[in-house]
Amino acid sequence: VVKVTAIEAIPFEIPFRRPFAFASGTVTVADHVLVRVRTDEGIVGHAEAPPRPYTYGESQTSIVAAVYDWFSPAVTGADPFGRERISARLARIVGNPTAKAAVDIALWDVIGQAVGQPVHSLLGGFAESVRVTHMLGLGSPSEMVDEASRIRDTYGISSFKVKVGRTPFAVDVEAVRALRSALGDDVELYLDANRGWRGDDALRALAALADAGIAMLEEPGRADDILTRRRTVERSLVPIVGDESCTRAAEVARLLLDRSCDMISIKTSRTGFTDSAKIVGLCEGLGVGVVLGNQIDGAVATLAGVTFAAAHRATTERPAELSAFVDIADHLLIEPPEIVDGRMAPPQQPGLGIAIDDDKVDHYRVDR
Amino acid sequence: VVKVTAIEAIPFEIPFRRPFAFASGTVTVADHVLVRVRTDEGIVGHAEAPPRPYTYGESQTSIVAAVYDWFSPAVTGADPFGRERISARLARIVGNPTAKAAVDIALWDVIGQAVGQPVHSLLGGFAESVRVTHMLGLGSPSEMVDEASRIRDTYGISSFKVKVGRTPFAVDVEAVRALRSALGDDVELYLDANRGWRGDDALRALAALADAGIAMLEEPGRADDILTRRRTVERSLVPIVGDESCTRAAEVARLLLDRSCDMISIKTSRTGFTDSAKIVGLCEGLGVGVVLGNQIDGAVATLAGVTFAAAHRATTERPAELSAFVDIADHLLIEPPEIVDGRMAPPQQPGLGIAIDDDKVDHYRVDR
Repeated sequence: VVKVTAIEAIPFEIPFRRPFAFASGTVTVADHVLVRVRTDEGIVGHAEAPPRPYTYGESQTSIVAAVYDWFSPAVTGADPFGRERISARLARIVGNPTAKAAVDIALWDVIGQAVGQPVHSLLGGFAESVRVTHMLGLGSPSEMVDEASRIRDTYGISSFKVKVGRTPFAVDVEAVRALRSALGDDVELYLDANRGWRGDDALRALAALADAGIAMLEEPGRADDILTRRRTVERSLVPIVGDESCTRAAEVARLLLDRSCDMISIKTSRTGFTDSAKIVGLCEGLGVGVVLGNQIDGAVATLAGVTFAAAHRATTERPAELSAFVDIADHLLIEPPEIVDGRMAPPQQPGLGIAIDDDKVDHYRVDR
Repeated sequence: VVKVTAIEAIPFEIPFRRPFAFASGTVTVADHVLVRVRTDEGIVGHAEAPPRPYTYGESQTSIVAAVYDWFSPAVTGADPFGRERISARLARIVGNPTAKAAVDIALWDVIGQAVGQPVHSLLGGFAESVRVTHMLGLGSPSEMVDEASRIRDTYGISSFKVKVGRTPFAVDVEAVRALRSALGDDVELYLDANRGWRGDDALRALAALADAGIAMLEEPGRADDILTRRRTVERSLVPIVGDESCTRAAEVARLLLDRSCDMISIKTSRTGFTDSAKIVGLCEGLGVGVVLGNQIDGAVATLAGVTFAAAHRATTERPAELSAFVDIADHLLIEPPEIVDGRMAPPQQPGLGIAIDDDKVDHYRVDR
């Protein structure tokens, strides 16, 4: 039986090619954490935790501390296959979702290597590749059109999640109209306000975009404005997607039962594989659609995302958000994930196929 | 990559030691089907499908036909790891739950053997053993007390699901009182009316048993009497468990949202491992308790049940119904499952640990 001997957390920083802006913040550097599970049989599992203070209250420092102070002691000595047991141990600490998720995913990487199977097969093995959605950061209409055109021409991507949520919302409406006009009708566009709009802005913006073929709207406004949120969901002709407002299975259930969203964004960087699979079960049982979201993942986390997305039928019904890493100037892998004709394939190597470039880790780590 | 080359369905009949009676029927013979998945690498996976016509409309004949006519062609050539893909193919045929479940479980048996791991580890690896509940068939109070005492003395079992649902319900009340009196307060008792009671019988029976320490009541009466069911759930002081009235994830969701049950019975012989895991996710997300139920499983199906039960935290929170096979006079295994001190451990061999005794298959099969 393989046993975990230690979990390491290596903070690193890689700049973005240019700032990525959205309604609740802007990132200029990927100040993420590489989580590494070591075992007594020499198998090493990896995952990446992206801190999102404005979403979960975690920082690079808190993630490193959570791994060393809580999660490494809790998991050391454990059989990595005992995921349900390990999840129960991690769950004793409240919050810290991306730290927990990275531990879970790195353990899955160990499991896959231990049995010689790619993890997408172990999780369900649904698809050989998945369509990719690119997230477009906030900018002027022409900047956003230029970026979308470049991404389409470079990667063949034809699905875009457009960041909105600005005040006045007319700025967003103008940008979305410009995108539809420039990209044509065959491109899929959906919106993410990152809780930025207020009051009826979301409904008014959607009305102004009624002929723009918007597929979905994520996090229209403040989730704590409960009645506004319900009214938006009730009246919107496009499905409202819950993301930051439902970060755990129980929150997903509450939000859905409250009629405060129509669909759910599943992010492996937030709920790992073990809990994400349960959320798939929850949503499938309730007949609720899901979208594989992106926590502005680096390349390592992207390999986890595509693994999970390809494994399940539910996560392949819509394009998956897997391309955020292309906005980051570099990565820790020997080979970055590839996007060809707008699609990404899950790694076929045992585990998650995460081949770390040690020189790059040495170069980008910030703890030495 | 392992590929499925054929699926076989072998009908067999093994008599019960004595008839097992419950409100919706009586079984005197285990007329089940052994499902066998063959692969190009020589790995063979097994599972057992128990037809329950009064619950699902399946027969031994229909299961054999479903496997040969639909499911073997649909799965032959497939990679057994592609469970989500295979599930989607099987789902194109409506109904036939135990036939589908057996195919899914036999594929998991292949997967476990292919990677050299017990399936309980692959599914979640929560517990080393689980507490066992025995189901007590209908009988006179003294017959039921004798049987419970014998099971307790033989296997150390201290949790019993007592079949009720007779008219007048006073017969059941008398039997349950006799059991509590004979077995003492430390034994867990819960009830299963198998949809047998009518109107307010369930509430009246529970009132009459208010001091008998009943843990749960399963399927109190006709599930299609929607308002009666809701009223029973609303007023009952013990949780009402949904079983035959919610045989798929979507039905579980509907019944729970309708407030027509408080807990869910998960049966691997009904929803396999793949869908049962999703139902675990659904129930965990909704904060709903589960019990690992028993489709009057033979020994082969019992190995599947204990594998799933031990894998998940949710299914170990209550004793699992795993001992029905002891009422059947023989089995198809080289060694039957063991119950020691009221507990059963999942097989530790790769796959499901199903070592078939070919002589017994030859002896009990009814298709030659």
